[in-house]
Amino acid sequence: MRNFKIVLQYEGTRYKGWQKQGGTNAGRREDAESSDSSFLETNAKEYTIQGKLERLLSRIAGEPVEIHGSGRTDAGVHAYGQVASFHMDTKLTAEALMEKINSYLPEDIAVISIEEVPDRFHARLGAKGKTYRYRVLNSSVPHIFERRYVWQVPEKLDVQAMCKAASYLEGTHDFKAFTSTKKGKKSTVRTIEAIEIVRCGDEIHFTFRGNGFLFHMVRILMGTLIETGKKNRRPEEMPAILESGLRENAGPLAPACGLALMEVSY
Amino acid sequence: MRNFKIVLQYEGTRYKGWQKQGGTNAGRREDAESSDSSFLETNAKEYTIQGKLERLLSRIAGEPVEIHGSGRTDAGVHAYGQVASFHMDTKLTAEALMEKINSYLPEDIAVISIEEVPDRFHARLGAKGKTYRYRVLNSSVPHIFERRYVWQVPEKLDVQAMCKAASYLEGTHDFKAFTSTKKGKKSTVRTIEAIEIVRCGDEIHFTFRGNGFLFHMVRILMGTLIETGKKNRRPEEMPAILESGLRENAGPLAPACGLALMEVSY
Repeated sequence: MRNFKIVLQYEGTRYKGWQKQGGTNAGRREDAESSDSSFLETNAKEYTIQGKLERLLSRIAGEPVEIHGSGRTDAGVHAYGQVASFHMDTKLTAEALMEKINSYLPEDIAVISIEEVPDRFHARLGAKGKTYRYRVLNSSVPHIFERRYVWQVPEKLDVQAMCKAASYLEGTHDFKAFTSTKKGKKSTVRTIEAIEIVRCGDEIHFTFRGNGFLFHMVRILMGTLIETGKKNRRPEEMPAILESGLRENAGPLAPACGLALMEVSY
Repeated sequence: MRNFKIVLQYEGTRYKGWQKQGGTNAGRREDAESSDSSFLETNAKEYTIQGKLERLLSRIAGEPVEIHGSGRTDAGVHAYGQVASFHMDTKLTAEALMEKINSYLPEDIAVISIEEVPDRFHARLGAKGKTYRYRVLNSSVPHIFERRYVWQVPEKLDVQAMCKAASYLEGTHDFKAFTSTKKGKKSTVRTIEAIEIVRCGDEIHFTFRGNGFLFHMVRILMGTLIETGKKNRRPEEMPAILESGLRENAGPLAPACGLALMEVSY
């Protein structure tokens, strides 16, 4: 079996997120539901990106293909550089396979690169780091053309205060207070290498680079940073929030639409 | 009555274009259809931008308000800087009126500036020049996030050849061959001040500046220029096409989605 690594872009607006309904591993629920209807005519709102790709690859291969993403993205979150891998028997060149996949994909998902990789490569297990970008439109005037990709925050925001708050969050910490996951079995310790905050015209871009992020982590970090920017919270509160490990001490969950997975490193 | 000039942005994807169904002047057909349902709950796909704005302004004013755009935009064409004017009795400041309008507008239309102007100002009659931009994505890889705003042309395009063809089209000409209007009563002579063609990464941007453009004119110019870029037509053919005045001698109608009205000058 050949092993392929693909880089994907998608606009998350219409989807229930990356991950297939029914579990982390080759869940059958979503597949079963769609088995009697064309994979090209499904109502995308009910589907996940992983499910959509698996159905498509399985049709091309003529047998079930399992695809592994570098990690989940929530419903509504976008990707400029999601990475996924899958094993498949095919006589097509990698380029021809990419072209074939793209010809079947809806217009809000695209494979932008493909390469054949050694058999042991696994998009999730091999991921070493991830970069997310969150775009805030800091203006009272809506931006018509970018509205699906930004969170509009009309209030004045203190970038300096947000940078200071971010500096407390960088590094290795237990981010339990910054995740929506209830069950406490797995480690919630993660390392954020950097949080960069840059004003670009009427937008503010927040770039998060780290070794991995918990469920909702970037969006809760964003909600907390924006409260700091509005002066409703002091940057110096960050260590106590981390320390507490309590979700209710952190800020609200920022909207999904502002968030995009930019890059995964291996 | 106070007279207001507004600058509008809209994403044309969902709309039947700028102009109200039922004629150039305060047509009643569209208004009548919607009179018994809330203007906030209309199915936008059936509506025009002008119709939507007139219903909204009439509600705010409590009496019929007529709005004049600088000109029509076709179904699916976008605007970064459409200008419109309307007379209205209101005690609101211009800024408060803009805020009120924006609070009722759907998320794909926004007023980005407003000013009170002398009574004689009329957005259509006073317009001296217009700038349109057409975006071509010159790549075989689709651009997920910009797909609503570009025409994807994967074939290799010769920018030099297109620039040469454009130079024949600049100036004052009878553009009868470049319009879809059948009736030949009105003058089809227009002046194109400049056609600028610039490669920006994997996109090519075409900027058209002129004193006015006929129905479908920019899109037929684009269809013709792209044929030249693909080497299916020689730049030197342009004068003969203009001369002929025959629509069938020009190229195909380029898709609406790549086109945007950028600016109107007075």
